[in-house]
Amino acid sequence: MTQSEYGTGLQLQSTITGSGQLEIKLTTIETPAPGPGDVVVRIEASPINPSDLGLLFGPADMTQASQAGSADNPVLTAPVPQELMGMVAARLDQPMPVGNEAGGIVVAAGESEAAQALLGKTVGVIGGAMYSQFRTVPAAMCLALPDGTTPAEGASCFVNPLTALGMVETMRLEGHSALVHTAAASNLGQMLNKICLADDVALVNIVRREEQVEILRALGAKYVCNSSSPNFRDELTDALVETGATIAFDATGGGTLGGQILACMERALLRNSTGYSGYGSPTHKQLYLYGRLDRSPTELTANYGMAWGIGGWLLTPFLQKIGLEGGTRLRTRVANEIKTTFASHYSAEISLAEVLSLDSAKAYGKQATGSKYLINPHK
Amino acid sequence: MTQSEYGTGLQLQSTITGSGQLEIKLTTIETPAPGPGDVVVRIEASPINPSDLGLLFGPADMTQASQAGSADNPVLTAPVPQELMGMVAARLDQPMPVGNEAGGIVVAAGESEAAQALLGKTVGVIGGAMYSQFRTVPAAMCLALPDGTTPAEGASCFVNPLTALGMVETMRLEGHSALVHTAAASNLGQMLNKICLADDVALVNIVRREEQVEILRALGAKYVCNSSSPNFRDELTDALVETGATIAFDATGGGTLGGQILACMERALLRNSTGYSGYGSPTHKQLYLYGRLDRSPTELTANYGMAWGIGGWLLTPFLQKIGLEGGTRLRTRVANEIKTTFASHYSAEISLAEVLSLDSAKAYGKQATGSKYLINPHK
Repeated sequence: MTQSEYGTGLQLQSTITGSGQLEIKLTTIETPAPGPGDVVVRIEASPINPSDLGLLFGPADMTQASQAGSADNPVLTAPVPQELMGMVAARLDQPMPVGNEAGGIVVAAGESEAAQALLGKTVGVIGGAMYSQFRTVPAAMCLALPDGTTPAEGASCFVNPLTALGMVETMRLEGHSALVHTAAASNLGQMLNKICLADDVALVNIVRREEQVEILRALGAKYVCNSSSPNFRDELTDALVETGATIAFDATGGGTLGGQILACMERALLRNSTGYSGYGSPTHKQLYLYGRLDRSPTELTANYGMAWGIGGWLLTPFLQKIGLEGGTRLRTRVANEIKTTFASHYSAEISLAEVLSLDSAKAYGKQATGSKYLINPHK
Repeated sequence: MTQSEYGTGLQLQSTITGSGQLEIKLTTIETPAPGPGDVVVRIEASPINPSDLGLLFGPADMTQASQAGSADNPVLTAPVPQELMGMVAARLDQPMPVGNEAGGIVVAAGESEAAQALLGKTVGVIGGAMYSQFRTVPAAMCLALPDGTTPAEGASCFVNPLTALGMVETMRLEGHSALVHTAAASNLGQMLNKICLADDVALVNIVRREEQVEILRALGAKYVCNSSSPNFRDELTDALVETGATIAFDATGGGTLGGQILACMERALLRNSTGYSGYGSPTHKQLYLYGRLDRSPTELTANYGMAWGIGGWLLTPFLQKIGLEGGTRLRTRVANEIKTTFASHYSAEISLAEVLSLDSAKAYGKQATGSKYLINPHK
């Protein structure tokens, strides 16, 4: 492929104006020529993840979205509530490219050995601005996939796989031996189930609908608790007694679920203890909020003693903590198991223009529950 | 003093019955003879701390307290709301002695060198059951006070002093350089102010009334924010920008104050940063809840990015973490500065029987704000 063939390409850009309007449109940009250590990737497939939605839509009210611009060049717009404008002061009036990760083909490479080694390969790639037809990135941001892997199969090989692996690593690093996960039937949750089964780690899955229980049971999950069950607290406590899980990763963030998990951990710990302490069990209980599917405030009642912690959990600082060697170990596992443990499922493949459709925008605005769309920028 | 002189003594005991009643009464118990490493302390003064109230009153509704028993041997009773009985299942029908710490005189000692060295000394003592006339404890649970110190001056030489020192130590251990404290005009807060001034550590004090601002200003506090001010959030943010404080210790626990502190830390960090990240500032912000003056649920809005943590903070596990050497260093400082940095103030000295009065019980039931009473068990 000569430079003329990848010289320009479409890119999706999201802007929040100073007057309180979200505007998403497609722009034709020049693809930068690769430096010595860079490669040019023809992006074939990029998922819309929950972690992309913040940059894509910001705090705009997508239920009020409308389409402007021309038929050739539509612009999706939506109002940002005035009281939320403070959250986005640093990005006002700047077109932000979107998309954390993608799968694609390396169509050009700089002269370094690492870059040349990727030429012609199918890769997973991370680094932002992936809702583009072409991306020029350092070779180190690509993960070469085994022969026979399609770009679509490799489109989600960073965020969800490394997050799921990161949860198990965090559990071990912080001295716990089993874990709890919410929104557990998600793509990420299914990966986590497969990892835990392979690694013999006990996992307590929390979902909120019976069909999600079935999805996880079909994957071999042993502990699945439905938060809609009238006996949820007792069922969760029983699972915590059996597994000894004292760390949880919660994708919902808001509401009372996180606090309920801590309280049930405490009940489980006290069930087999003797004696009374006004400060509760001395065993540390940890809750990490890694998502915000529920945007209501997090409400905590103090019914889990004093040995507890809650925190945000984010992939990038975690990867910094485990360093290059740890990161390489995890990425190698992802590449080797991309068609099994780390297989993702999507409900539809859409074009860049279709991201700007009212239907998809409003669908995300309404539910904000995990990604099911895969973007093909050349469709 | 011969054993006959300390052979028996009054002890306050708190019982929660299976039928949902709190009963507090005084009982005459035998003072155990000291083993080789033990001393017998004649307790002269013991504070009622917030940390004593949990064991003393449990979750009983003290606004409904009444007195039973005889005039000679009164019993203070109060109902425990049915829905809170689960919190105290492990202590039902067991008379619990109360009182974390005290000051007293060592009136008998076992044969070990450490015990003999304390004979006749005025000591601070920790170990529970201090609302008693005599206590037999291991010598290691006593802190010998400098000559000229009264038992009343040494009555609070563990919980508040070590907690205040522990906050500064925790700040350093976790890599922060300045700290925030709420309910900052308390005895503990005043100690923390004196420590921070001596150690040149910037401290942001949060109080809720103007007279508390004045108390702290009179101690030389530089940063005092009144949460009742209409500009509280801006004033706190300014103080956080100036000090760079990224760790807070909150005595209130419930409500929205803790979350507001995290949000103002985030605003302070973003004020001088450039560029936009949907995940907020990468600087870790830490909030420790070490008390529960506000019993309402803790409410957190997710307006402080992803780099944050909240946890319980408790003195005993902290002392275990810093080990014997660290603990000895802190205790030595407390003994040396017991009349200055670690001086405590009480509004009244009361007898054991007066703890059982309706007035004091209801006062605690209503406000649950810090200790002002000092018990003299021989009064």
